[in-house]
Amino acid sequence: MKIGIIGSGIVAQTLGTKLVQLGHDVALGTRDPGKLDDKKGFGGSLRDWLANANGKAKVVSFRDAATHGELLINATHGQNSIDALKLAGDDALGSKVLIDVSNELDASKGLPPRVGASQDSCLAERLQAAFPKVKVVKSLNTINCGVMVEPKALAGGDHSVFVSGNDAAAKAAVGELLKSFGWTDILDLGDVSSARGPEMYMALWLRLWGATKTGTINIKVVR
Amino acid sequence: MKIGIIGSGIVAQTLGTKLVQLGHDVALGTRDPGKLDDKKGFGGSLRDWLANANGKAKVVSFRDAATHGELLINATHGQNSIDALKLAGDDALGSKVLIDVSNELDASKGLPPRVGASQDSCLAERLQAAFPKVKVVKSLNTINCGVMVEPKALAGGDHSVFVSGNDAAAKAAVGELLKSFGWTDILDLGDVSSARGPEMYMALWLRLWGATKTGTINIKVVR
Repeated sequence: MKIGIIGSGIVAQTLGTKLVQLGHDVALGTRDPGKLDDKKGFGGSLRDWLANANGKAKVVSFRDAATHGELLINATHGQNSIDALKLAGDDALGSKVLIDVSNELDASKGLPPRVGASQDSCLAERLQAAFPKVKVVKSLNTINCGVMVEPKALAGGDHSVFVSGNDAAAKAAVGELLKSFGWTDILDLGDVSSARGPEMYMALWLRLWGATKTGTINIKVVR
Repeated sequence: MKIGIIGSGIVAQTLGTKLVQLGHDVALGTRDPGKLDDKKGFGGSLRDWLANANGKAKVVSFRDAATHGELLINATHGQNSIDALKLAGDDALGSKVLIDVSNELDASKGLPPRVGASQDSCLAERLQAAFPKVKVVKSLNTINCGVMVEPKALAGGDHSVFVSGNDAAAKAAVGELLKSFGWTDILDLGDVSSARGPEMYMALWLRLWGATKTGTINIKVVR
């Protein structure tokens, strides 16, 4: 499938590499696709990422990534997501499915970072409101990117992932992609407002990260 | 051990019954201990609760429950906790360990209830600030009361519970009580501000409750 990833940091790169491995045609969208040699936060340079993809992916603008994809992924930092999607543009976004894996985490006032989501609003809802035709599905934001794409590497995959969104068919499509990563326990939490749950959960995730000293963790919903 | 429970609803009753079964000397504190026949929310009447305790517990005022306990539990509704503890009084609370199992959930604007905790403040912190001598330990708020006291009845107990608080000895004492209930995976999240994590997690718990149609759920921290 043609997949457009909005964002080019470590989460975007990790998802992109996994999708290439699964045989998808991936375009990674970045603010300035000419800057291939900059180190991207916790990720490497996009030139290294392209080299790893063996010519099976490309680095393009946000707009070109959105145009390329039949399915889109928002893997920007949550604080920048609306701006990045505006740069992609309504025409390119169309009425496509957009998997929103991002979190609004603000480390400017110290650690642990502050979580942007609240009882009144979360990022997935704001994205859905800003781009009403797009089919936003919140998922994977509760998990470190290494675990996102290789769930079976942690406890054999015996842990949970969530989907939230207004469109049942979009959530089903995202569920299929998650299964192809190895996810088996996929819980549908409800409409896009239910993403407040997994976004607010990040306040606990950050404390679990501190307590366990590893980001290679997740939760299993025991029932 | 002499244990004073502040609160008399279903959570307080369930904890109280378990503690009596474990051999503790329990005083349940309620706003008006003369009203033994009122149904207490989702719980039964206090007269029925006392009958089940076979004379091994008593129902008293908030103040008398706080005076009675060597260890205290706040099991009031989170919106009423500070008022209830003020009625208990600083002298009765002293510098005792107070396990805060409560949540600030506001259903007045519809379901799911709104979660009071935010990135700026949570109930455990406000209790600690209001009663600075008390050793507040947040715990068990992430779990339905039936599961709180019988963790092994759900998936053999293979799931997690958290403690947050400023006093290491107080957290250790709470950990011993949790072990006596059957808890095996007890994660220390840090000081009392870390309770923002499990309090904000309730936004996810409420969605999981909706998705799974049962409150008999919990999370296991997989690592």
